[in-house]
Amino acid sequence: MSEPVSKKSKPTHTLILLRHGESEWNEKNLFTGWVDAKLNAKGRKEATHAGELLADFEPKPDVLYTSKLSRAIQTANLALESADRLWIDVKRNWRLNERHYGALQGKNKKEIAEEFGNEKFMTWRRSFDVPPPPIADDDKFSQYNDERYADLPKDEIPKTESLKLVIDRLLPYWSDVIAKDIKEGKTVLITAHGNSLRALVKHLDNISDDDIAGLNIPTGIPLIYELDDDLKPVRERYYLDPEAAAAGAAAVANQGK
Amino acid sequence: MSEPVSKKSKPTHTLILLRHGESEWNEKNLFTGWVDAKLNAKGRKEATHAGELLADFEPKPDVLYTSKLSRAIQTANLALESADRLWIDVKRNWRLNERHYGALQGKNKKEIAEEFGNEKFMTWRRSFDVPPPPIADDDKFSQYNDERYADLPKDEIPKTESLKLVIDRLLPYWSDVIAKDIKEGKTVLITAHGNSLRALVKHLDNISDDDIAGLNIPTGIPLIYELDDDLKPVRERYYLDPEAAAAGAAAVANQGK
Repeated sequence: MSEPVSKKSKPTHTLILLRHGESEWNEKNLFTGWVDAKLNAKGRKEATHAGELLADFEPKPDVLYTSKLSRAIQTANLALESADRLWIDVKRNWRLNERHYGALQGKNKKEIAEEFGNEKFMTWRRSFDVPPPPIADDDKFSQYNDERYADLPKDEIPKTESLKLVIDRLLPYWSDVIAKDIKEGKTVLITAHGNSLRALVKHLDNISDDDIAGLNIPTGIPLIYELDDDLKPVRERYYLDPEAAAAGAAAVANQGK
Repeated sequence: MSEPVSKKSKPTHTLILLRHGESEWNEKNLFTGWVDAKLNAKGRKEATHAGELLADFEPKPDVLYTSKLSRAIQTANLALESADRLWIDVKRNWRLNERHYGALQGKNKKEIAEEFGNEKFMTWRRSFDVPPPPIADDDKFSQYNDERYADLPKDEIPKTESLKLVIDRLLPYWSDVIAKDIKEGKTVLITAHGNSLRALVKHLDNISDDDIAGLNIPTGIPLIYELDDDLKPVRERYYLDPEAAAAGAAAVANQGK
């Protein structure tokens, strides 16, 4: 399927992915999705540490992409502050948002697992194309009337999403906007969310619909891609702090257990 | 020169100006200019308080403009965090930077006043069109090789500036870029610096070259303009915390004394 990595020396591009640190809602074990939970003290520390890792890494980010959610933006602001790169250009887009968790938003993960059984819980969390039940427009955890999505036609504001639907809304932004910056030679930093970053990793590494279920991205540790001019990886993706990344990924996998 | 304010009811636009809070270099009484001093603890508090004032104000900012200097960006990040508006779009441009203080950058204000006399000191600080001596390209406080201005042709990177030169480089950005957002109906927040904001206020209120010397903008207090479609003020500019603003302006006027 994917061609063998070219041995010719080509200019490579660096892409840096960063999942936001722990939020007040992660801590309470709630499904967050598009709800705008803020970082907690641990999440702030993780973000600052991510910036320290970036400060020791070359190349440095030239442009920042974030979702429209505060926890990703706070993570970027704190990381760029500790990396002393606050001045780079910033682009925000809802297409980098976390997966919309539908009617599960605002609900406790453990309670959902107990109420609906572990199988349904794991299906909603990890199946590729089964979205949870949709959220009602007047639900207090719906974003139907959220001013930050006012530019979006009302019928395009998600009411629930599977990972497949996240890929469908993320990839056009990747191909049309972010990829352009990368091809122009910019080092791009994307601060986003567990599922929007899984969607991107699935695309970049051509991971199958089945295998993506087993992929967990830890919070607060920069994930590095080196890409050729066709934006194909020229080496395996890696974390700036591999040991912490392995521990973090295991912790994500255990959520709700 | 300026026409009397129209009595017809017109849609008005709101512009919010915010001078960054106290930096580590303000505290040490050093000429900062384009040197990238960071906010100190007091400056961070001022920025957070500015956001609290914005949280109680309507309309809310839709788009943020900042200089390329960390202290203005930190101020914006903290203010938007406490106003819960982190998600708005952001544009950064060097044309909003503080006045370049030439060879005075990195020097103590009191020592400069003593060495050169108060008259020369006040001329450099407050005259309209007399720039300080230029800074050498290899001076450690020069920005000649600063990566954040890499997009700028080398001979356009300032080596010193008067307020007049600040106006010359700021107004094209105001007219071509910021004004466009305002005319499209967006509420614009600009976080910038004492002199770049004085330059803008001089333009908006048509203040004479002589009178601008007496205008001091306090740190950390949102300054509100209501503008008509020609971007002329429809009422006098005002601060969200007028008492604190008056005290703050007096403190700025006393610097170096």
